Amino acid sequence: MDLGHKQFCLISDCEDRVGIVARTTGFFAEQGVSIAQANQYVESDDGRFFMRYLVSADAFVGDHTDFAQKFEPIAAEFQMNCRVVDATRLQRVVVMVSKHDHCLAHLLHRWKGGDIRCDIPGVISNHESLRDLVEWYGIPFHHVPVPSDEAGRKAAFEKTAELIDELTPDTIVLARYMQILPPWLCERYRHQVINIHHSFLPSFAGAKPYSQAQDRGVKLIGATCHYVTAELDAGPIIEQDVVRIHHSDSIADLKRYGKDVENLVLARGLRYHLENRVLVHGNKTILFDR
Amino acid sequence: MDLGHKQFCLISDCEDRVGIVARTTGFFAEQGVSIAQANQYVESDDGRFFMRYLVSADAFVGDHTDFAQKFEPIAAEFQMNCRVVDATRLQRVVVMVSKHDHCLAHLLHRWKGGDIRCDIPGVISNHESLRDLVEWYGIPFHHVPVPSDEAGRKAAFEKTAELIDELTPDTIVLARYMQILPPWLCERYRHQVINIHHSFLPSFAGAKPYSQAQDRGVKLIGATCHYVTAELDAGPIIEQDVVRIHHSDSIADLKRYGKDVENLVLARGLRYHLENRVLVHGNKTILFDR
Amino acid sequence: MDLGHKQFCLISDCEDRVGIVARTTGFFAEQGVSIAQANQYVESDDGRFFMRYLVSADAFVGDHTDFAQKFEPIAAEFQMNCRVVDATRLQRVVVMVSKHDHCLAHLLHRWKGGDIRCDIPGVISNHESLRDLVEWYGIPFHHVPVPSDEAGRKAAFEKTAELIDELTPDTIVLARYMQILPPWLCERYRHQVINIHHSFLPSFAGAKPYSQAQDRGVKLIGATCHYVTAELDAGPIIEQDVVRIHHSDSIADLKRYGKDVENLVLARGLRYHLENRVLVHGNKTILFDR
Amino acid sequence: MDLGHKQFCLISDCEDRVGIVARTTGFFAEQGVSIAQANQYVESDDGRFFMRYLVSADAFVGDHTDFAQKFEPIAAEFQMNCRVVDATRLQRVVVMVSKHDHCLAHLLHRWKGGDIRCDIPGVISNHESLRDLVEWYGIPFHHVPVPSDEAGRKAAFEKTAELIDELTPDTIVLARYMQILPPWLCERYRHQVINIHHSFLPSFAGAKPYSQAQDRGVKLIGATCHYVTAELDAGPIIEQDVVRIHHSDSIADLKRYGKDVENLVLARGLRYHLENRVLVHGNKTILFDR
Repeated sequence: MDLGHKQFCLISDCEDRVGIVARTTGFFAEQGVSIAQANQYVESDDGRFFMRYLVSADAFVGDHTDFAQKFEPIAAEFQMNCRVVDATRLQRVVVMVSKHDHCLAHLLHRWKGGDIRCDIPGVISNHESLRDLVEWYGIPFHHVPVPSDEAGRKAAFEKTAELIDELTPDTIVLARYMQILPPWLCERYRHQVINIHHSFLPSFAGAKPYSQAQDRGVKLIGATCHYVTAELDAGPIIEQDVVRIHHSDSIADLKRYGKDVENLVLARGLRYHLENRVLVHGNKTILFDR
Repeated sequence: MDLGHKQFCLISDCEDRVGIVARTTGFFAEQGVSIAQANQYVESDDGRFFMRYLVSADAFVGDHTDFAQKFEPIAAEFQMNCRVVDATRLQRVVVMVSKHDHCLAHLLHRWKGGDIRCDIPGVISNHESLRDLVEWYGIPFHHVPVPSDEAGRKAAFEKTAELIDELTPDTIVLARYMQILPPWLCERYRHQVINIHHSFLPSFAGAKPYSQAQDRGVKLIGATCHYVTAELDAGPIIEQDVVRIHHSDSIADLKRYGKDVENLVLARGLRYHLENRVLVHGNKTILFDR
Repeated sequence: MDLGHKQFCLISDCEDRVGIVARTTGFFAEQGVSIAQANQYVESDDGRFFMRYLVSADAFVGDHTDFAQKFEPIAAEFQMNCRVVDATRLQRVVVMVSKHDHCLAHLLHRWKGGDIRCDIPGVISNHESLRDLVEWYGIPFHHVPVPSDEAGRKAAFEKTAELIDELTPDTIVLARYMQILPPWLCERYRHQVINIHHSFLPSFAGAKPYSQAQDRGVKLIGATCHYVTAELDAGPIIEQDVVRIHHSDSIADLKRYGKDVENLVLARGLRYHLENRVLVHGNKTILFDR
Repeated sequence: MDLGHKQFCLISDCEDRVGIVARTTGFFAEQGVSIAQANQYVESDDGRFFMRYLVSADAFVGDHTDFAQKFEPIAAEFQMNCRVVDATRLQRVVVMVSKHDHCLAHLLHRWKGGDIRCDIPGVISNHESLRDLVEWYGIPFHHVPVPSDEAGRKAAFEKTAELIDELTPDTIVLARYMQILPPWLCERYRHQVINIHHSFLPSFAGAKPYSQAQDRGVKLIGATCHYVTAELDAGPIIEQDVVRIHHSDSIADLKRYGKDVENLVLARGLRYHLENRVLVHGNKTILFDR
């Protein structure tokens, strides 16, 4: 849909009560903005109300911060956690990767073709091997090796964090980055770091999930896109999918099938995130996927 | 979710302009009803705006017709096609079937367990063979044979229509009813007759779709749930799904796989319809599936 | 395919070496039987060779035991674990169930329609509630309550085992039987007891898997059909599948979706088992699914 | 599985009778080759028997033509259509493409990573735009514009055919090549030209399938990989898959989802073909997919 030149996305959550939507959409009508997408959800466990509105705001004089300011009294009235973002502004996404190139290649190809809309100010890797690929897309490549000794690791992640901070990302994507981020770094970019894990979590967390899957004899393997938290592979899940396997498939076959599932799950999860469709609630996500 | 004792569903479409949602949800707030489910959609081709609201209306004094009457000025202002239904009232669903029993058995089992919420005042068949099954569920079974000669067919469908009219259905389900309804009967119950066709339409419309599928050598077969119109297998599609097949599968195998797909597609389509989640727009459906 | 009146199924495993297939199919040719289905697999880890042949044996004078006897020298030569079964003989399947009726209803409907080919000499339940359903299909229903105290449980399972032994089953299906079988009973019918677990194992083993799934916030739920072993929900997996869920789905919704997945996974798993397509190897299955 | 250094693949079809497998595998045993993969199928309609064997042939003295020659008496005895290929030799695959780059990028990425095993002696396009991508992979790029006038088209395809002949391909892949090949060229490379069509055939053959799909209001879209024949989009189907869509998806959304399905279906279809797993029988394929 053609949304015009100015689009704002309002995302908020608050305790449910009568009138939230009426007041919010009444405000939209007063401001002359039209609703392009609307999502809402009440969590029955705790009565928390979540909403997301994408509005076409060409008729509004001012930018998204002005809009947020004008909305502030309503947000205050309902004690909302609320943010308004400029939906036309491209987020800055830093990608981290190790040696496996499939997720990176898929993201970059989709990014170049306009299917994943963001800026990519840089790719960080603990190996040199993917420099050519990244630079072919005109993106700066940063090599930060991660030694295996504790002191080396510590220094490496301090350097990594510095580099990330300089790139001022909105979002960090671990596109098969095979190092565990230190908790303080996860915390600094809370709900901004997206990982792809090559299993259908919570099964087969940790190392070598395809081997674990084959050992258990499962008939489907999967991939999970989730926000990174201090606990390994235990953060809020954004998206998952699976693919059927066969007893005759080798580990190499599983890895080959897995590449496609990982690519698709990560790309879908990242798109949802970039379009402000993922709201974290406790250790779960509200996913306004359409 | 516990919706309280009184629930209304408002479904409407009108030309899109600023303020529809604000006025509608403002009305809800004034009446003290809370929004349990909200769906909206603008068709970009023609600027038509569709919405569906399920509201918890215990605080409202009056029934759904009173509610509709109070909403009337807003509906008029926006020139809405609008209806308000009592969402707690069970629809009356007449099921028609021939000899294949799988869709019928699936529907009745799911109906008995409360997964498909409706009343079933009767089952009509052109054969006697499924009487036992239907009566085991305590549902009246009506046998109306359909002869192959034109005069006999005509009489049979007049009798069928009479019987249907007496059962005062909201919805008619053709659960593998292997006769073509006359156009005047389709028209009388326009967008109220749901058929399950055992192919992934538009491929393999008409007779013997599984044979057609095998002749063409497709690698997946499917089923389609759609509203019945005068043109055979060409009405608005509600739901579809597919299943993978193999070159070694016989027609009997395809029919066996197909049973599961038909069952699931019909049950999902019917649920969507019964929950007022399907809005017909031209020859397509707007499906507010969640 | 029309297999004629006499069909044998030969299933065997042995150490891989050159000549096994040649000797086996050479034997078939000598006996004048034709191969209808052939499956073979070498496990690369341990070099174990598995094969399954379904043969049309009208030209063979004698029954499947005569056939096995004639094959004995070849089986001995390659030190095969080998069995020949009469593929036209219907297996005897005892079904055990508690209160959830969906898997039972699906199996019985498919059995009556000829899609699941077996004899069902009896259904055993720890509740009375499904007697009507079972007896409508003309199958004896046995009620064996299982008390919660240890002594009561012990006695109940002794009675259950006696009853099972009298029914002389080839296979026992736990179609949502909500009791844990004692290890000695699992052992007595080793690789003959099939369970349906309502999660995608190894995730969410044990009690209340749908609640566990919702708590973890997964985006797909599943079902697993497996052989029962002494360790709960840890036996060799025969078949699995999943279905997509949404953050707005309640536990009741998950259970409703789950019914379809459970039904299909159990029915497929049981069919594979009845057609001798499942070969257990350690804690995994070789599944010759076509 | 490690197949050793010498591997042959024998593919044949003949009229079914007792002894084909015995004689064939007996021959393998005599030659000391071991069976790595075995597939067989009898078409019940016409009694045609198809088989495919992959054998580890390190113990055989000679190459695949010697092996074929030794097998010749058996092939003659059963009047087989038979070919033996050197399964370690990489096929030569010429890729043709227009402007859409997703299938090409996916194939090249997978080819570079070793997931699609073949040589790619050249890419031919009727546009210049994908030269950079192709050359980054070190593959020669040939630009052959196809004018819209009849004479220009004729000349262009003569030049194209010449170029193809020089590249001596085993297989030609149309990876979204938006021109219709002339019948004489299809015939010259019969059952060697693989196309990806962006619909679930036979629905929506011809131009603009995503628009056709949206106009009809289907709930799933798909892709089809098939051999090219003189009749447009009507050749033997190798592989198909689908993805769910929503009423709110624009044509651009359908194209975006479609890219993934097209990529996966084409890559799977091509792999099957390269591993000699696809046997054409009339207008259908026997697909020995595992």
